[in-house]
Amino acid sequence: LIRTYAPNLTHYPLIGIDDEEFQTSKKLITKQEVRAVTLAKLQLQDDLVLWDVGAGSGSVSIEASNLMPNGRIFAVEQNAQCLAFIRENLKKFTTRNVKLVEGEAPDALDELPDPDRVFIGGSGGHLEEIIIAVDGRLKPEGVVVLNAVTLDTLTKSVEFLEDHGFTTEAACVNIAKTRNLTEYKMFEAQNPVYVITARKGNE
Amino acid sequence: LIRTYAPNLTHYPLIGIDDEEFQTSKKLITKQEVRAVTLAKLQLQDDLVLWDVGAGSGSVSIEASNLMPNGRIFAVEQNAQCLAFIRENLKKFTTRNVKLVEGEAPDALDELPDPDRVFIGGSGGHLEEIIIAVDGRLKPEGVVVLNAVTLDTLTKSVEFLEDHGFTTEAACVNIAKTRNLTEYKMFEAQNPVYVITARKGNE
Amino acid sequence: LIRTYAPNLTHYPLIGIDDEEFQTSKKLITKQEVRAVTLAKLQLQDDLVLWDVGAGSGSVSIEASNLMPNGRIFAVEQNAQCLAFIRENLKKFTTRNVKLVEGEAPDALDELPDPDRVFIGGSGGHLEEIIIAVDGRLKPEGVVVLNAVTLDTLTKSVEFLEDHGFTTEAACVNIAKTRNLTEYKMFEAQNPVYVITARKGNE
Amino acid sequence: LIRTYAPNLTHYPLIGIDDEEFQTSKKLITKQEVRAVTLAKLQLQDDLVLWDVGAGSGSVSIEASNLMPNGRIFAVEQNAQCLAFIRENLKKFTTRNVKLVEGEAPDALDELPDPDRVFIGGSGGHLEEIIIAVDGRLKPEGVVVLNAVTLDTLTKSVEFLEDHGFTTEAACVNIAKTRNLTEYKMFEAQNPVYVITARKGNE
Repeated sequence: LIRTYAPNLTHYPLIGIDDEEFQTSKKLITKQEVRAVTLAKLQLQDDLVLWDVGAGSGSVSIEASNLMPNGRIFAVEQNAQCLAFIRENLKKFTTRNVKLVEGEAPDALDELPDPDRVFIGGSGGHLEEIIIAVDGRLKPEGVVVLNAVTLDTLTKSVEFLEDHGFTTEAACVNIAKTRNLTEYKMFEAQNPVYVITARKGNE
Repeated sequence: LIRTYAPNLTHYPLIGIDDEEFQTSKKLITKQEVRAVTLAKLQLQDDLVLWDVGAGSGSVSIEASNLMPNGRIFAVEQNAQCLAFIRENLKKFTTRNVKLVEGEAPDALDELPDPDRVFIGGSGGHLEEIIIAVDGRLKPEGVVVLNAVTLDTLTKSVEFLEDHGFTTEAACVNIAKTRNLTEYKMFEAQNPVYVITARKGNE
Repeated sequence: LIRTYAPNLTHYPLIGIDDEEFQTSKKLITKQEVRAVTLAKLQLQDDLVLWDVGAGSGSVSIEASNLMPNGRIFAVEQNAQCLAFIRENLKKFTTRNVKLVEGEAPDALDELPDPDRVFIGGSGGHLEEIIIAVDGRLKPEGVVVLNAVTLDTLTKSVEFLEDHGFTTEAACVNIAKTRNLTEYKMFEAQNPVYVITARKGNE
Repeated sequence: LIRTYAPNLTHYPLIGIDDEEFQTSKKLITKQEVRAVTLAKLQLQDDLVLWDVGAGSGSVSIEASNLMPNGRIFAVEQNAQCLAFIRENLKKFTTRNVKLVEGEAPDALDELPDPDRVFIGGSGGHLEEIIIAVDGRLKPEGVVVLNAVTLDTLTKSVEFLEDHGFTTEAACVNIAKTRNLTEYKMFEAQNPVYVITARKGNE
């Protein structure tokens, strides 16, 4: 019934959910602002197939689900603690169209329908294999987005993507926020995240 | 008919529309990445009333409309060229639930229904008057978001908002992107934008 | 004897001393990169008088001393722990021409010679009084530099300085560094610092 | 005579010289703030040998010379226009101990004394060859600093340096400044620069 979904709409926003609302470990989550940029770069439309590879806490899948009520989202994760986080979060936000896929990418991707969009939030050391698998399965005009927080991942992901015929853009996102509710408002920086967007061919 | 809306869904994303797709002047538009952060901070839910004050090219209203098919969005603008841009953009993206309000804020706000959310992209020199008007009309648990690109607006908006009982957070958003399709990938910075989020009371 | 000074030259650089080399508390120190920008903004020449107001650990005074062997530097500090840090650091770096001034600004400034350059690293809640005192004493063509880490200090310092006839520039400095010696190189952000530079008159 | 040097000290600072004071093309110069960070990372002491490879407008050499009156600085450049800029700038700032070396690196480095410090501002497409040459000549406890504005140079320089046994740190420097003398103070971003610092061995 649609009513089981509605109540949360009065509590949580479609995108921009507070990081604290997710069950997660602090280092794991794609933070609110970077999540918004990531969803924008994913160029979502309502009825697409999205793979969320290395789903972590599931926050990207959950907000993508809010944007694509008719989409099909596959959250792929192998880590036991992350799987527990994702299950709790999917329940909390009564997310209906995210399927949790337990297993290691790229193997766990075999069973999934071909994707229109792929978000790679973590690769478990198999970045190139995942990109090869994505390259073979991505639908025409598909979009791949990857978040890198290390120089190594930034370097390798751009290299692998371009080696496999993708055109890439890397956006370095730096956010500093004033802390609320202190006497003074100190700017606190988040670590920068490189949001890499890839499409096939020259554009 | 719903079909008249559907075709564009195959061309444009819900959020993250390329800046180049909007009729606008370069300096005017809230850029793709900052627009995404702004929408996240606005904490949108499907059926809300949003005022977009100083709508510019209408890009925030248009993407907010994609997120809130049952919402009511009011794009308030006084500048003739901007009004022309907004009209073209609303048509291009077949946006159904954005009402264009010609006139100067805060006066032009009188006729509108009370807002759940307010985005202030421009104030035409009437920032304090607009904040006073918003303060008197904003629904309980409402959210105000304001984008500042100058030190003066950053300073004054936080001061005025706090003077009127709002709790504020200022997020400085710095984006640098590699330019696509050149032999080498040079990082090009966008000017920083301060995205200020305000709620009533202490949180 | 000059030889007592020389040995350290083989151990420490003139500017860019590692933060870890200073006795300090972590939150207190002007970090290496921001210190370098601060010294550049101070427009130092060899024989000037520099006031370092709210000297903290003394790191700015010490590097300024390396740049101005014939200058006279006054490190003004009232906090007991900071005074202890500064004494240790002046000794460690065998800094010859920094005079430690114990006391609270602006009162402690009365006895000092008129400054060519003033760095305000901390104001102990007396920012406007300090700016008034500096305004009355600064030599023609003098330069004032102030580091702000809070929105409040950014706002007030620019306001006070301009109220007293200074022209200001605010530079937001964002630094993110890869951590050395880990298997991967993660970018870690420092909190942004606003380095405000002020001169008399319109330039 | 020392007097021929002295007058400029009353006009120009030791570091932090305004970018506009240098003869240069806009895109070429290491900007004031990044130059200061670069000099800090170079860990300069008074009597060192510094190679400035791809000296551009000579701004780093000139400020390094102000820090190292007893040092020996070699500005290596092959581009005819840059050579003209450097000559004019060395004259303007009456820089005494910078030797201009016309030619292409790494070949042009053969004749120079072994360096304590190396700054690579440009590589003319010979980055790996230059790093190999530097690796063979750098004195023990030497420091190499390299500025990268493209993802390609960031990636390759860290890779090559680590391949040759250097430990590296990459600092992303983002600066946004308010423009002076306008009615309002808009923050304008500079493009980010990656300042890479390398030393031999594990530290």
